[in-house]
Amino acid sequence: MEQVRMGVIGLGNMGSSHAVNIHGGKIPGMVLGAVCDVSEARREWAREQVPGVAVFDSVDAMYKSGTIDAVLIAGLHYDHPEQAIEAFAHDLHVLVEKPAGVYTKQVLEMNEAAAKSGKVFGIMYNQRTNPVYQKVRELVQSGELGSLKRVVWVVTDWYRPQAYHDSGSWRSTWKGEGGGTLINQNPHNLDLLQWILGMPTRIRSFCSFGKYYNIEVEDDVTAYLEYANGATGVYITSTGEAPGTNRLEISGDMGKLTIEHNKLTFLRNRISEREHNRVNTQPFAKPECWQCDIPVSSSGGEQHNGILKNFAQAVLNGTPLLAPGEEGINGLLISNAIHYSSWIDGWADLDQFNHEHFYELLQERINGSTVEKQQVESKVADLTGTH
Amino acid sequence: MEQVRMGVIGLGNMGSSHAVNIHGGKIPGMVLGAVCDVSEARREWAREQVPGVAVFDSVDAMYKSGTIDAVLIAGLHYDHPEQAIEAFAHDLHVLVEKPAGVYTKQVLEMNEAAAKSGKVFGIMYNQRTNPVYQKVRELVQSGELGSLKRVVWVVTDWYRPQAYHDSGSWRSTWKGEGGGTLINQNPHNLDLLQWILGMPTRIRSFCSFGKYYNIEVEDDVTAYLEYANGATGVYITSTGEAPGTNRLEISGDMGKLTIEHNKLTFLRNRISEREHNRVNTQPFAKPECWQCDIPVSSSGGEQHNGILKNFAQAVLNGTPLLAPGEEGINGLLISNAIHYSSWIDGWADLDQFNHEHFYELLQERINGSTVEKQQVESKVADLTGTH
Repeated sequence: MEQVRMGVIGLGNMGSSHAVNIHGGKIPGMVLGAVCDVSEARREWAREQVPGVAVFDSVDAMYKSGTIDAVLIAGLHYDHPEQAIEAFAHDLHVLVEKPAGVYTKQVLEMNEAAAKSGKVFGIMYNQRTNPVYQKVRELVQSGELGSLKRVVWVVTDWYRPQAYHDSGSWRSTWKGEGGGTLINQNPHNLDLLQWILGMPTRIRSFCSFGKYYNIEVEDDVTAYLEYANGATGVYITSTGEAPGTNRLEISGDMGKLTIEHNKLTFLRNRISEREHNRVNTQPFAKPECWQCDIPVSSSGGEQHNGILKNFAQAVLNGTPLLAPGEEGINGLLISNAIHYSSWIDGWADLDQFNHEHFYELLQERINGSTVEKQQVESKVADLTGTH
Repeated sequence: MEQVRMGVIGLGNMGSSHAVNIHGGKIPGMVLGAVCDVSEARREWAREQVPGVAVFDSVDAMYKSGTIDAVLIAGLHYDHPEQAIEAFAHDLHVLVEKPAGVYTKQVLEMNEAAAKSGKVFGIMYNQRTNPVYQKVRELVQSGELGSLKRVVWVVTDWYRPQAYHDSGSWRSTWKGEGGGTLINQNPHNLDLLQWILGMPTRIRSFCSFGKYYNIEVEDDVTAYLEYANGATGVYITSTGEAPGTNRLEISGDMGKLTIEHNKLTFLRNRISEREHNRVNTQPFAKPECWQCDIPVSSSGGEQHNGILKNFAQAVLNGTPLLAPGEEGINGLLISNAIHYSSWIDGWADLDQFNHEHFYELLQERINGSTVEKQQVESKVADLTGTH
C-alpha cells in the first residue's frame, strides 16, 4: 500500500473538516477514498466539496465497496464502537473520533475486536500533538516533578451557548449523545489528564444538569480525584462560563508545573520538599525554589492533521501511534465515573468500576427523558480552532 | 478615654509581635497596658522587650488589675471564647485573634456575651485590610461581576514543615488546637471567602490527616461548596506543598476576577453572559470580553496594625469595625463544616449545621488521640510576612 484510502463516516462539524483536509492533500500518505452520511444534504455537500470521491448513505455499503483501506468514524457517539467493530470485521484500519464511545461496556468490546483484528486502531486525541502537553507529560513521567501531590485542572473555557445545544436534534440529550460536556468537549482534557498522570483510583463528583441551558445533560462539573499514591486532584469544567479558564496546575515533590494560555511554567525546588522537610529545623522555612524556563513550542502542534499523518504512517510503515485507540477507554472511564458518582451521590471506584450499573443508570436517563426536540436541520459550523 | 490601654494574652508568635508594635507607638490611640502569659520565659521576655508594662501570669488577675481597657486575646485557640466572655464580664473591650474559637458552639456563646455587653468586639482578620481583597469584595457586592457562578481558591502556600508542628506541645493536636491548617492558617482565607461572597449553603469535603507530617490533624484539604443561587466552588489548602499557590478565581455572569500574587485581573464581558445567551444565534459565539485594569494598591494594606488602629478608633470614636468579632463565626462554621463533612464522609449543611454533633465528633478525636508529644519549650519565630 502506498496511500491509505480513508473513508469518513459522518459529515458533521468534524468529519467535514477531516474530509476536506485529506482531500486537499494535507495528509501525506492518505487520500480520501469515500465518505458516508445519512443526510442527503451532507452527501450533496460532499459531491461539491470533495469531488470525485465515492459517496455512500450506508456504512455497510462503504465498508463492502472496496474503495477504502481505513475508516475515520466521526458520526454519532453511540455508534462509534459498533461501527469500529464492523470495520475490523471488514479488515479495515480504524481511526475513531472522540469519545471512544458513550459507556465503557461497549468500548471494552471495541477494544477486544481491535486486538483480535490486528489492524491499526487510533483515536482522534488531537491535543496529544500539542508540544506543551507532551513536555508536561515528559517532565512528570521522567520524574522531574517528583512524586505527584496534587492536580487542579480548571477547564471552563468550553463555552457553548443555547444555540449550540439547539443545533442538532441529538445534541445534549441522553439518547442522542449520552451526556453533555463530559462526553462532548472534555474527552480531550480527560485523556490528557490520564495520559500525563495515569488513572485516578476513585472519584467523587458533583454535576449540574441543565443549570445554564435548556438541556437535560450536564453543563457544569466538579470532580474530586484520588490517586494510588495518596495524591488528590480537582477537575472542573463547564459550558456555561465566559470567558472561562483553562489552567492546569500539577504539584509534586519537586515543585509545580502550571499550564495556562498554552504556556508552561516550572517552579522547581532545589531539593525535594520531602528531603527539605527531613533536614530542616526552622518552623517556617521552605525549600529554595527556582523559576525555570523550559524550552517548548507554543504552536499548539499539528492537532487533527497530526493525528491523521501519524495514523497514515502507522498503517504504511508501522510507526507507533501517538493516540492508540485502546487508550480511549481511559478518559471515558473517568467521564463515566464522574457521571456515576454524581448520579449515586457517592464514590466511584475506578479500579472496580461497575460498568453494568453505569449502563443501567444511563438507560434510566434515556428512558426517563422528557426532551422533545424539534427535528432541526443540523448546523455545521466552521470549527477552526474550537476543538 | 484618650488612649486605649490594651492587654495582651499570650506572648507566642502573634501576641509578642502585637505587644511590641503597640508598645512601640505604632498604633495611634492605643498603649500597651499589660501582658499575660503562663510561661515564665515569655514573661521574662516581656520585661525586657516591653519594659514598664504590667506583666501577669493569670488572665483573671490582669482583668481585675485596672491596668487595661481592652484585651487582645492571642493565647490558645480553645481559650479564646471563654477569655472573651470573661473580659466582657469585666467590662473590657475585646479583640480576639483568629480563630474565633475551635467549635461554633462556644463561639455562639461568645457572640451572645458580646451582644449583651455592648463593648467593642473585634477579630484579627488582618487580611481584610488588603486593598486587593477589599476591591474584589466591592466589585462582587456592587454587582459588577453579576450573579456568582463559581469560585476556585487554591491556597496551598501555607507550607509548614515538621519543624513547625514540633515547635509546641499543643501544636497540630486535637486537644491542643482542635485542628490543623483549617484552624491555624486558613481562618484568614475562609473569612475572606465569606466576606467577599457570603456563606455557602452546603459543603462536601475531603481532608487528609497527617498525610505529609507526623501529626494527627489535617494537612491537606479539598472542599466543594454550594451557594444558594446554584453557584459552586472549590477550596483547596495544604501545608505540605512547596512552593504552593495562592490563586482566587471568581466567575460571574459579567466575567471573571482573578487574584494571584496580590494582583487583581478583571476579564469583563461587554454584556452579561446570560443576556448574550438569550440573543445569540451562533453555536460557538462567546460574549465580547475586555481585559480591565482596576486601580488598586498592591501594598497589602496595613495588616495587623491596621486592625489594631481600627479597633482603637472604634473604642475611642465609635468608628465602625473592619472586622467585627461577631463575624468570626462565619469562617469557623465553614471550617467546622469542612472537618465535619470529611469525618462523616457526607454532606455538611451549613444552614442547619449540627453544632452539637460536631462537638461530639471533635471530643472523640481528642479522647482517641495517641499523640504523646514531648513537652518542648515553645519556639517563638519572627513571623514578619507569614501570617
